[in-house]
Amino acid sequence: MKTIIKDCHGKEQANSSASSVKTRELICELCRHFYDLGWASGTGGGISIKEGSRIYMAPSSVPKERLCPVDMFTLDEDGRVLSEPGGGLKLSQCAPLFLHAYKIRNAGAVLHSHSINAVTATLLFDKAFRIKNMEMQKGLTGYGAFDTVEVPIIENTALECDLADSLGEAIRNHPKSHAVLVRRHGVYVWGKDWQEAKTHAECYDYLFEVSARMKQLGIDTGF
Amino acid sequence: MKTIIKDCHGKEQANSSASSVKTRELICELCRHFYDLGWASGTGGGISIKEGSRIYMAPSSVPKERLCPVDMFTLDEDGRVLSEPGGGLKLSQCAPLFLHAYKIRNAGAVLHSHSINAVTATLLFDKAFRIKNMEMQKGLTGYGAFDTVEVPIIENTALECDLADSLGEAIRNHPKSHAVLVRRHGVYVWGKDWQEAKTHAECYDYLFEVSARMKQLGIDTGF
Amino acid sequence: MKTIIKDCHGKEQANSSASSVKTRELICELCRHFYDLGWASGTGGGISIKEGSRIYMAPSSVPKERLCPVDMFTLDEDGRVLSEPGGGLKLSQCAPLFLHAYKIRNAGAVLHSHSINAVTATLLFDKAFRIKNMEMQKGLTGYGAFDTVEVPIIENTALECDLADSLGEAIRNHPKSHAVLVRRHGVYVWGKDWQEAKTHAECYDYLFEVSARMKQLGIDTGF
Amino acid sequence: MKTIIKDCHGKEQANSSASSVKTRELICELCRHFYDLGWASGTGGGISIKEGSRIYMAPSSVPKERLCPVDMFTLDEDGRVLSEPGGGLKLSQCAPLFLHAYKIRNAGAVLHSHSINAVTATLLFDKAFRIKNMEMQKGLTGYGAFDTVEVPIIENTALECDLADSLGEAIRNHPKSHAVLVRRHGVYVWGKDWQEAKTHAECYDYLFEVSARMKQLGIDTGF
Repeated sequence: MKTIIKDCHGKEQANSSASSVKTRELICELCRHFYDLGWASGTGGGISIKEGSRIYMAPSSVPKERLCPVDMFTLDEDGRVLSEPGGGLKLSQCAPLFLHAYKIRNAGAVLHSHSINAVTATLLFDKAFRIKNMEMQKGLTGYGAFDTVEVPIIENTALECDLADSLGEAIRNHPKSHAVLVRRHGVYVWGKDWQEAKTHAECYDYLFEVSARMKQLGIDTGF
Repeated sequence: MKTIIKDCHGKEQANSSASSVKTRELICELCRHFYDLGWASGTGGGISIKEGSRIYMAPSSVPKERLCPVDMFTLDEDGRVLSEPGGGLKLSQCAPLFLHAYKIRNAGAVLHSHSINAVTATLLFDKAFRIKNMEMQKGLTGYGAFDTVEVPIIENTALECDLADSLGEAIRNHPKSHAVLVRRHGVYVWGKDWQEAKTHAECYDYLFEVSARMKQLGIDTGF
Repeated sequence: MKTIIKDCHGKEQANSSASSVKTRELICELCRHFYDLGWASGTGGGISIKEGSRIYMAPSSVPKERLCPVDMFTLDEDGRVLSEPGGGLKLSQCAPLFLHAYKIRNAGAVLHSHSINAVTATLLFDKAFRIKNMEMQKGLTGYGAFDTVEVPIIENTALECDLADSLGEAIRNHPKSHAVLVRRHGVYVWGKDWQEAKTHAECYDYLFEVSARMKQLGIDTGF
Repeated sequence: MKTIIKDCHGKEQANSSASSVKTRELICELCRHFYDLGWASGTGGGISIKEGSRIYMAPSSVPKERLCPVDMFTLDEDGRVLSEPGGGLKLSQCAPLFLHAYKIRNAGAVLHSHSINAVTATLLFDKAFRIKNMEMQKGLTGYGAFDTVEVPIIENTALECDLADSLGEAIRNHPKSHAVLVRRHGVYVWGKDWQEAKTHAECYDYLFEVSARMKQLGIDTGF
């Protein structure tokens, strides 16, 4: 079944499958939401969703809260561009990073956030962020309330694409983690589908914030 | 009178009484609001409302800001499930905890929040949170502006259902309190109806925040 | 010209003048906004507007973000109730306080906020809040960017109506101030019309927040 | 093509070109957004956009979140008023400041914010705000993730128009900067079009906030 993808002014732009339209609209809606949370200000951050063997990705360097369904790139599982939005829009530099999570972890969605809570976590911890004994950990698949949650921190690079190798290595070395922090930059978070990626991202951000608040109030975090 | 319960896409799902529909819609609206307040991120938190002898409860482990009226479980006063939403949705682990407040305090609504202000209160206080001489205390039934407000803090457990006994004990031992804090987890708050439960929850959260801010600024809280 | 006042469910409730309807709707809209700013959580806070010789006032102890136009009391300039909303709603205990600003300062609107920034100001200062040399002071009628802004702080009382005398005295003793802070309670702010009252309230709240942030960062406020 | 400019009540006010209508509506939308971000409370802040050789500017001393498309002034590139909104509205005192960025930097939009993050930056730094090694710097045209970002700070003046000379001088002396901070006042930010001005403003505000948070947590900023 073919459905119309509309741009943000209601004009018809292209034919597409109904599920494609829904995924494109969902990315726009989630990006607006992440912008409101402070995760995607200044054109930073975003989310990519995999539907079947097709990966949807927002373009680079555009205000994420103002995306339209037609603005998406689609890629295959090896990162080859299947369709482009045109209009001078460029593929996100995050693409190779997102692909790592899709391939190594069989993720269904990958989220990138510039949240100040995430950046603060990379300033308060060295090789990895750690927290323990928080109920909110149960929102992270595989963790209980009395476990220790660990998120590896990798060093930032001048070009986002140069992060790919160390991100891949961090993913492989921390098989329990659903996220990798990047120093003074932000965090990559994934899940088996967009709901789980979003839940993971909210739980991690909450844990980053609690940890910083504990440090500010002089409460021992145990790390 | 029977009315249609619609799912979030406008499809008719079941017949139900008009008051049932209104309660289900209200739970969805309040959950969206609590999510915006930061009380229900990462699938945490929620609200249950009692209408007559029927208790409405949201399912477990789903994003609370995206609930539909059809997603609710209904229970009788003894916690027996009267109707299920289907679709693989599971009853909240909070159910036995909510039932304690309904039974012991004759509550009309019970709210659970993962607010960082509540968690911080459990990190700054030992057996009970205490504050005094704040005007906002008057929003808590039974308290005046010059009283001391006390909220018991119980220890968290690996499984939420294992909290039930100590929560019940804390409720019985603190007859003036409309809430029980759970260490590194959050807070349960109730009231005679949803309006009072919401008012109590807002007042307690405000008091938790003021107390933490006082500690941060070096102002004596008196405790 | 008579127009219909509708309740929040769209039912017609009473006939009223068009300007009355507009004022009632405006109070509802502003209360929702103040709730979102954190000034009116837990049924606290609110706004009263004077239109001609008639004063509109929201009822006591109800969630301010869910008011309907029909919920308002109307009073004459001496505080006599001209019309009641019925339904068991009670006149706000703030009424005598609001009347002081209307009478002594010829205000056109009076706002009451429980903002945590205001409460913090009353914890950081003794007899009066003071700040100087902030551009935002220019939003307060009669002040320049290089003046010192002073807001008197009065002690809270068990009953809100018992605040009236000391509030009246503080208003008379601080003729330049558009606000009076109440210890551990909040702030009363007024202006010649609702726009000015709202502007004053936003500027004062901003100044309270800046002052607390300066103290937190160890920056000298000059007081 | 001529289109109708409507006021906020839907009444037709004037004929105008379609692009003019769009620009006027955009300014209203952006001002509401900046108000929500806390950049334009208490009638402060705002944005001006240049379309061709015509500059659109919001009036002075009005709540920026409640502007209507008809409320704008239009000016030519030398600051001469081409059209006035009437109704007693006065041109913003920021006009000469905005014109400096248009002329010296060939900006397409200029934004003024009273953000508390910006004001805090002027309290924590002396002659210029400095930060380095933050990914978010890449949102500022001409900067990489490992550069040092510097924003000059000028002293505030009693009248906003008296800032014009020192602002012009700061712009000329800091050719890489897209912003000038004003002590205890706020920040002026520009870009080649409104999208870039908004992106720059969001990135700077984020950097101001991160810097203050680092100081609060005792983390070395390098400056």
